[in-house]
Amino acid sequence: MKLIGLRPPSARRGRQQVMVGVVVDDRVSPLVDAVDFYEDLPRWLERARKVRRGSVRLADVVPEPPVPPSARVLCIGLNYRAHAAEGAFQVPEHPTVFGRWTASLSVSGRPVPVPANEPGLDWEGEVAAVVGARLSDADESETEAGVLGYAAFNDLTARTAQKLTAQWTLGKNADFSGPLGPIVTADETGSLTDGLRLVTRVNGELMQDGNTRDMIFPVPELLSRISRTMTLHPGDIIATGTPEGVGYVRRPPRLLTPGDVVEVEIDRLGLLRTPVTDASARSGA
Amino acid sequence: MKLIGLRPPSARRGRQQVMVGVVVDDRVSPLVDAVDFYEDLPRWLERARKVRRGSVRLADVVPEPPVPPSARVLCIGLNYRAHAAEGAFQVPEHPTVFGRWTASLSVSGRPVPVPANEPGLDWEGEVAAVVGARLSDADESETEAGVLGYAAFNDLTARTAQKLTAQWTLGKNADFSGPLGPIVTADETGSLTDGLRLVTRVNGELMQDGNTRDMIFPVPELLSRISRTMTLHPGDIIATGTPEGVGYVRRPPRLLTPGDVVEVEIDRLGLLRTPVTDASARSGA
Repeated sequence: MKLIGLRPPSARRGRQQVMVGVVVDDRVSPLVDAVDFYEDLPRWLERARKVRRGSVRLADVVPEPPVPPSARVLCIGLNYRAHAAEGAFQVPEHPTVFGRWTASLSVSGRPVPVPANEPGLDWEGEVAAVVGARLSDADESETEAGVLGYAAFNDLTARTAQKLTAQWTLGKNADFSGPLGPIVTADETGSLTDGLRLVTRVNGELMQDGNTRDMIFPVPELLSRISRTMTLHPGDIIATGTPEGVGYVRRPPRLLTPGDVVEVEIDRLGLLRTPVTDASARSGA
Repeated sequence: MKLIGLRPPSARRGRQQVMVGVVVDDRVSPLVDAVDFYEDLPRWLERARKVRRGSVRLADVVPEPPVPPSARVLCIGLNYRAHAAEGAFQVPEHPTVFGRWTASLSVSGRPVPVPANEPGLDWEGEVAAVVGARLSDADESETEAGVLGYAAFNDLTARTAQKLTAQWTLGKNADFSGPLGPIVTADETGSLTDGLRLVTRVNGELMQDGNTRDMIFPVPELLSRISRTMTLHPGDIIATGTPEGVGYVRRPPRLLTPGDVVEVEIDRLGLLRTPVTDASARSGA
């Protein structure tokens, strides 16, 4: 099953108000406000499964990330050995966790502006896991069953801001810098350890070509470890880290500048396409 | 003017649904849902100013942090020279920014559980600044005018989780670990550089005794710098850092364990009182 977020036609609150809908072929059936969807997932998933034909053409909806405004986007750094190595980091003993807020999430097709004080943005193609249950001090069998599904994600990074200090948060929350794809439920993707190929292209040129079977910390372990400190809720997102091939470590470094187009494509999860623009597009954030 | 969050009596969505109310003496007048409040601040502040007597007794409401679920809580590390020094950090050239999500915010009086894998929690008394305008590439005159007000905050920290890796995020988002007080509007507090005394007590014993005039990066500068990368929205929170006197650097180290009570008290902003309990209280998160 494929789930998307969409702006209701009568939304008063702009990006604060998002519905979740289920996609069937080229049509979508809007279900309910995203907050309510994640408050009672079993009920809405059952209803979604019964949808045979959507009421709206997919091409006619304004897409939004399919998460509630309160969702936490926990990003995992250095979760592929070859990516840790290319940045001259040690292979970590514990997952590196940094945070994004939903305000920086975006969708495929929406342009991402380069802030005026950055030479460009860097790409980080990733699989995002969407939490489907309340998880607190949860073991790995519980967390494995607690994944609603997966989505393609691009953790577009403002490297200058990221590296101003030891904490990466600022550079990971630039406006519109986190395009997130539709959620494909876990029954259709299988486990990430079985292997989904992930590629990132810039203007058609292959930059990353990884596979989720190479993760250092698989998703059930990530969720279990995180749940020891903080209780995870349905709708929270774990961005599982990027494989090797990012821009800033290339010789010479390669960053995205206005006019570039970056694509992340992942087996079974689909394609995210992000045009890069100048800082004037920040006015919409 | 003093603003609080409160749970509407008929809330279906638990902590997702919060109203903002204005406090007059010992009564409160609930105004509107927090999302709508921050979407049209001028209108609701004007209405709040006309309230002469609240409709509900303050003692009868269930308090909540007065922020929308999507709010970003940007925490500034190492913003007092003596606190940077006690942790053996250099005085920073740039503000250190790490993130909290609203899910970890709490209120005065609500117990904070110590996660099962932590020896205790550490205190960090702070002033939180609440953003009152959209700020993007904003200069300091714009950001100074863009502060709605200030609140007392305790950035209670799970040090073990914080220090597992170089990124602090996990240890800064333990369940119920961010008690946030009422917002006192900026017209009543004056500028933080004029100096608000901040004290933290554990079981009545003085642990921190700082003053906001000693901040390395004042609030207008923090907001201006952050706004170069990410557009700030009304309701976003900047936790401005803690002065010296935290627990983990003491000899011997002192952490909060079940049975302790920690208080943060700040001139003009009031008192936050947080009882510490064991991990079983995580079941409410």
